[in-house]
Amino acid sequence: MSEQTLRVIPLGGLGEIGRNMMALEFGGEIVVIDAGVMFPEEDMPGIDFAIPDFTYLRENREKIQAVLITHGHEDHIGALPYLLAEFNVPVYSSRLTHGLITVKLRERKMLDEARLNVVEPHTSFRVGDSFRVEFFRVCHSIPDAMGIAITTPLGVVVHTGDFKIDHTPVDGNPTDFTTLSRIVGDGALLLCSDSTYAEVEGYTASEQVVGDALDRVIGDAPGRVMIATFASLISRIQQVINAAVRYDRKVAVVGRSMMNNVNMALNMGYLEAPEGTVVPLSAARQLPHEEVVIVATGSQGEPTSALVRVANGRHRDIEVVPGDTVVISASPIPGNETLVAKTIDNLLKQGADVRYSRISLVHVHGHAAREELKMMLSIAKPRYFVPIHGEYRHLVQHAAIASDMGMPGSRIFVLEDGDVLELDEASGDVVDTVRANYIYIDGNRLWDMDSAVLGERMRLSRNGVVTVAVTLSARTGLLLSEPSITSSGFIAWDDSNILSEKISKKVSSTLEDLDGESLDLEEVRSRLTKSVRDFIYGETRQRPTVLTVIEHI
Amino acid sequence: MSEQTLRVIPLGGLGEIGRNMMALEFGGEIVVIDAGVMFPEEDMPGIDFAIPDFTYLRENREKIQAVLITHGHEDHIGALPYLLAEFNVPVYSSRLTHGLITVKLRERKMLDEARLNVVEPHTSFRVGDSFRVEFFRVCHSIPDAMGIAITTPLGVVVHTGDFKIDHTPVDGNPTDFTTLSRIVGDGALLLCSDSTYAEVEGYTASEQVVGDALDRVIGDAPGRVMIATFASLISRIQQVINAAVRYDRKVAVVGRSMMNNVNMALNMGYLEAPEGTVVPLSAARQLPHEEVVIVATGSQGEPTSALVRVANGRHRDIEVVPGDTVVISASPIPGNETLVAKTIDNLLKQGADVRYSRISLVHVHGHAAREELKMMLSIAKPRYFVPIHGEYRHLVQHAAIASDMGMPGSRIFVLEDGDVLELDEASGDVVDTVRANYIYIDGNRLWDMDSAVLGERMRLSRNGVVTVAVTLSARTGLLLSEPSITSSGFIAWDDSNILSEKISKKVSSTLEDLDGESLDLEEVRSRLTKSVRDFIYGETRQRPTVLTVIEHI
Repeated sequence: MSEQTLRVIPLGGLGEIGRNMMALEFGGEIVVIDAGVMFPEEDMPGIDFAIPDFTYLRENREKIQAVLITHGHEDHIGALPYLLAEFNVPVYSSRLTHGLITVKLRERKMLDEARLNVVEPHTSFRVGDSFRVEFFRVCHSIPDAMGIAITTPLGVVVHTGDFKIDHTPVDGNPTDFTTLSRIVGDGALLLCSDSTYAEVEGYTASEQVVGDALDRVIGDAPGRVMIATFASLISRIQQVINAAVRYDRKVAVVGRSMMNNVNMALNMGYLEAPEGTVVPLSAARQLPHEEVVIVATGSQGEPTSALVRVANGRHRDIEVVPGDTVVISASPIPGNETLVAKTIDNLLKQGADVRYSRISLVHVHGHAAREELKMMLSIAKPRYFVPIHGEYRHLVQHAAIASDMGMPGSRIFVLEDGDVLELDEASGDVVDTVRANYIYIDGNRLWDMDSAVLGERMRLSRNGVVTVAVTLSARTGLLLSEPSITSSGFIAWDDSNILSEKISKKVSSTLEDLDGESLDLEEVRSRLTKSVRDFIYGETRQRPTVLTVIEHI
Repeated sequence: MSEQTLRVIPLGGLGEIGRNMMALEFGGEIVVIDAGVMFPEEDMPGIDFAIPDFTYLRENREKIQAVLITHGHEDHIGALPYLLAEFNVPVYSSRLTHGLITVKLRERKMLDEARLNVVEPHTSFRVGDSFRVEFFRVCHSIPDAMGIAITTPLGVVVHTGDFKIDHTPVDGNPTDFTTLSRIVGDGALLLCSDSTYAEVEGYTASEQVVGDALDRVIGDAPGRVMIATFASLISRIQQVINAAVRYDRKVAVVGRSMMNNVNMALNMGYLEAPEGTVVPLSAARQLPHEEVVIVATGSQGEPTSALVRVANGRHRDIEVVPGDTVVISASPIPGNETLVAKTIDNLLKQGADVRYSRISLVHVHGHAAREELKMMLSIAKPRYFVPIHGEYRHLVQHAAIASDMGMPGSRIFVLEDGDVLELDEASGDVVDTVRANYIYIDGNRLWDMDSAVLGERMRLSRNGVVTVAVTLSARTGLLLSEPSITSSGFIAWDDSNILSEKISKKVSSTLEDLDGESLDLEEVRSRLTKSVRDFIYGETRQRPTVLTVIEHI
């Protein structure tokens, strides 16, 4: 690799939603942008989340200069503890993001060692010999979200983070195209821009629109109003507080993560509420219903969240009564549709008036739609373009936008995680592919997507398991007692022991057939397993996992 | 129950999408409307589908006069073989629906016994002493869909089936409000109307709109066009054929269910194609790509479908090449979003130009939106209203529409499966609830939702299973050999046998601790299981299912 080339290596977030991470490499130095988690999909049962594969970073450990964080959402900071545990490099982030990272590292007792830095927008700083970094404000569904401009000897790289354009943001900080324009001057070398909503025509509505809707709901509600949203969506919570104040209601906050975030945002000044507006739930319960707004977690139908416990009638302190209005101020993240739908249905069955995004304008999302993406491309005027953050089809749609705007296809790169794009002034090319596996976190363990465990779990979930235990004489190889059969999640067991007895007989007869052959234990085990599996399939058309255990005495 | 009351008993489809079935009872006679399946949700792993609970029908077996079928979709006819196996009553349906039922019953060798009748719309017929039945045409995403008007001594019951209003339907048969108006006269007694899209404002677009979009795609495509849609969506396939003819392309049909349906529809005259237009795939493969349209199954991302095999590069005869256009002319049914998304991504990665409902107008659905639902309410002018077909929130939204139109709340009934609504001329009330469990079909077995099997499967999928086998002396109760430990889907196993050895030691020590206590085998087993479960949790923070097998020798 020439010293005068820039390498762009997405390690997560390209081809999926989540676990965002990108490495930029120039002159033997690497900066990493974001280190996020991805929440599990249907084919990852039992997984807490997935993080990016650090293999490439591990192999280039000495080159890493810093980690730059765009904003404080889990899909951008959640993998940071795992990253810093291996590479204790400096971290740069905006103020609120810093606060969220601090909480996360303190919980894991990693705060003392960590090298955290707060970055103010408009202030540039050096990273290594090759990079000058400047953050610029963008609008997103959390305050203090930043795009990052990285000036390299080859030109400016613009990484948007997650963004949308909001001309009337609740916190007064619009996406800062002035600063971006100043930095890129005649044009950026490379734009890496958020593709999450590249399929959606037009513009994403301003957060203000939701404020108007919430104001009407809270103003008109005959009784209590309960609003569920993301704990990180501080501007949404601000709008709830504003409306509550206007209609003389108190606000109670329910759910651990919601309480933590609201308290932190109040303390840091990201959330403003007149003295006495935010009250404990115990105080709110003493008030007439029409003087109360409850802000809660559970907008994604999370089974242990406050809203879902209320919906299921299992919340200690809150019970739905007719006259209650519940607002789900979020839309379901793909994969959560069913959980959210069941929550809505349960609330309706208990007599609540439920407002949700499909029937009411109680949510706008935080990502740029197609016209906003064009605006970003227009202002960054990049020589090269890499759509980031999205499933593959989102990246393709975003690439098509750039192409429609006249950018030559040879300068647009639809990359996947692990692709190594090498750029110089004249041209760019994918020159290599590095490992970018899903690394799964399950309880206190990490493991690799190549593991057979997930496949085994999917198979268990579809067919259940049957266990066969036999005790053989070490001397004669003959059965010393009846084979024991047990099972879990296997349907044919339901009604009788007949099948169990049949399997037991089948095991005995298989062993008799094997008698005389000189087989090692492993061979006997595998023959038994196959025989039982085939027998069960013949009897039931089911294919449970069969585990055979042989004891030799 | 008075002789002069009508009982309305939904047995499926109210509170869920699918397994539609309703019983109407008057004067000791029952008619059943539809008998559908429901496709499994996330919490039903390994299930083929669910059907309604026939307990109420079983208890009132002698009252059942007939089954009336609205249209030929699986969620309306799929449970018919199970129903007819128990109650061989006459079945009434329109012509195409009859054809589809015939295929289904023939496969199961039930055709000879079945008492099937074809009904022409506008022709009324008697069922039992209490019911006069007349079918009226409605538009839906399959031809020959019918609403049903049932005249009882108390008045007319209108059941819409699934419907939308299409003033320019492809088959020339609009929703027949003229006939409906004639039958209801001054107003129906009861309207049961499709709620699936009651959340959606405005009108559902005409099928014609999709025809225009498909015409442009096929006209402009540089190479092959592959179109995936529902096999039952005959009017969509007709529009593909029309466009293919216009642009001098041949049509090849791929996928077993698609071929069966196209052949049946051609034979019965529901599909028209000039001689030589529809060709075998083998013939299409000899043609230049720009002369070919392929119609295939797989619009829901079904893993074994033609489209998905093509997308994964595993189809025997079709390989994607750049220049190919793929149209997914369907939208994902809730729960299938991820499968469809992965299919799109895989096709894009292979270089196809992919059009799908989120970015292109290549699909309209078959259900009425809010303004159409109002039209149905206006024309039926019912005294009582029961929203049917939908999740609970859809029923609530539909009820709100009726209420907004001025209908008193006391005459609107948001029912759930199993509710028994009793109506007379003066008033209505839910007087009883009957069993309406999910009955699961898995391979060749039926079982009840109360079974523990599904819970066991969910647990296995999250945590895997660990099997512990021990052989004890029947005489001394002591271990005769090392305990054997095996597992599936359990993460901590991955890297070493250390944990397995630790568990083995734990088993031995637990047994030693039990020594001296006089416990029966079952008690020993449950103590061992608990001890191992706690031990594993302590070591790994995981909670696998633990199966303990004890052999006594």
